[in-house]
Amino acid sequence: MQRYKLVIAYDGTAYQGWQRQPEPAPTVQRTVEIAAGRIVNHPVTVRGSSRTDTGVHAMGQMAEMEAETHLEPNRLRRAINSRLPEDIVIREMTLAEPEFNIRAAVRKRYRYLIWAAIDRPVFCRHYLLHYWHRLTLAPMQEACRLFVGTHDFAAFKGKSDERENTTRTIFACGIHQRGPLVVFSVEGSGFLYHQVRTMVGTVLEIGHGRGGWKPERVPEIIASKDRQQAGPCLLAKGLCLQWIRFGP
Amino acid sequence: MQRYKLVIAYDGTAYQGWQRQPEPAPTVQRTVEIAAGRIVNHPVTVRGSSRTDTGVHAMGQMAEMEAETHLEPNRLRRAINSRLPEDIVIREMTLAEPEFNIRAAVRKRYRYLIWAAIDRPVFCRHYLLHYWHRLTLAPMQEACRLFVGTHDFAAFKGKSDERENTTRTIFACGIHQRGPLVVFSVEGSGFLYHQVRTMVGTVLEIGHGRGGWKPERVPEIIASKDRQQAGPCLLAKGLCLQWIRFGP
Repeated sequence: MQRYKLVIAYDGTAYQGWQRQPEPAPTVQRTVEIAAGRIVNHPVTVRGSSRTDTGVHAMGQMAEMEAETHLEPNRLRRAINSRLPEDIVIREMTLAEPEFNIRAAVRKRYRYLIWAAIDRPVFCRHYLLHYWHRLTLAPMQEACRLFVGTHDFAAFKGKSDERENTTRTIFACGIHQRGPLVVFSVEGSGFLYHQVRTMVGTVLEIGHGRGGWKPERVPEIIASKDRQQAGPCLLAKGLCLQWIRFGP
Repeated sequence: MQRYKLVIAYDGTAYQGWQRQPEPAPTVQRTVEIAAGRIVNHPVTVRGSSRTDTGVHAMGQMAEMEAETHLEPNRLRRAINSRLPEDIVIREMTLAEPEFNIRAAVRKRYRYLIWAAIDRPVFCRHYLLHYWHRLTLAPMQEACRLFVGTHDFAAFKGKSDERENTTRTIFACGIHQRGPLVVFSVEGSGFLYHQVRTMVGTVLEIGHGRGGWKPERVPEIIASKDRQQAGPCLLAKGLCLQWIRFGP
């Protein structure tokens, strides 16, 4: 048996997230396991680094798997890709270094795309949140800066996240606009369930100015540790896991 | 009754082209007619400028329709948009000038997108042709230049086009690359059935160099007036009608 490290991209539209489900729901993990199993002729377990949610996309999900095969990694990758549906692709596949630990990610980057225009987008609409209210960029940029640092993000956590430690570090956070496309990016040590989507939801409330929200709301919400204080958790389809880094 | 001029964008993936079919097939024309009819409470006929083919997209299809309504054009537009599926949107709607003639287009621009990489694209894959052979840009750019001018395009015509006059003028034609994305653009007085897709198919053969094809093949193919001499008609999904101009 050899252990492999994988970089996987997927369009999450058709999947109930990354994680294999008890019932037979289509998930990315299960789909990759079936395709890999067909190539190596034994059951395969694929362990991912991030449990992306239903409808969330990935450019650079990281995963590991063990397989018994004579194929060299890049041939194995292309063979598995030939068995995968068109919305999943293994971008890289290499032998895992002995010290590689899929649970030891140190930095992850997510991107959230917003289509800020009155008319809905008809192209690439599965990757964009349509937001038709007016947005002002400067307060949103200031709000993003106020997320940077090590904070208790309990106020940004989805109900089903039962982890006790809700402290996470945000290394970078920003937002920019090109025409109707607004791009939010965030890099952190890790994220709670629904955290990124609730951060963007809060930033858009500030950009819209509804209820008089200013950028200074961000540290206030963080300090409150109260989910009711933060903005809404936005639709999954705008979210994409960009990359994951391991080690120093 | 008032006459309106429309600019329509659509994702053609789910449609059997623009043109209403005798059998009840989903077409963009029929879908817009039904939505408009529901708003104005009478049957509506929408006439388009270009009969885009099954699976072809549009950013700027032009159309006209007549309706009896008290709504001002932009309100009417938004009302119809609210009844349209998410893959079609009316971008503009204005009262048509008396001299406006939907059949009198003078210039149209099409774009064809190619994903030139070994691995298939998982995002926006319905708008890209995946081409995994090696491509060289310079001969393709030269081939594009050789299309410019007024020529008999009989060699680039699909079988079902029965128009006698196969002479068309190409005002501009070019191709460029940004990473794995190759963008082909062409502006002309009008196009024969399958003409653009066969032009791109020919340009890719030249870029691949298969069979020793050089840019000079373009005038040779044009002169032959023989469909067998040109490259293949590529998949519809890479093609998008960008805009149409009327009048001088």
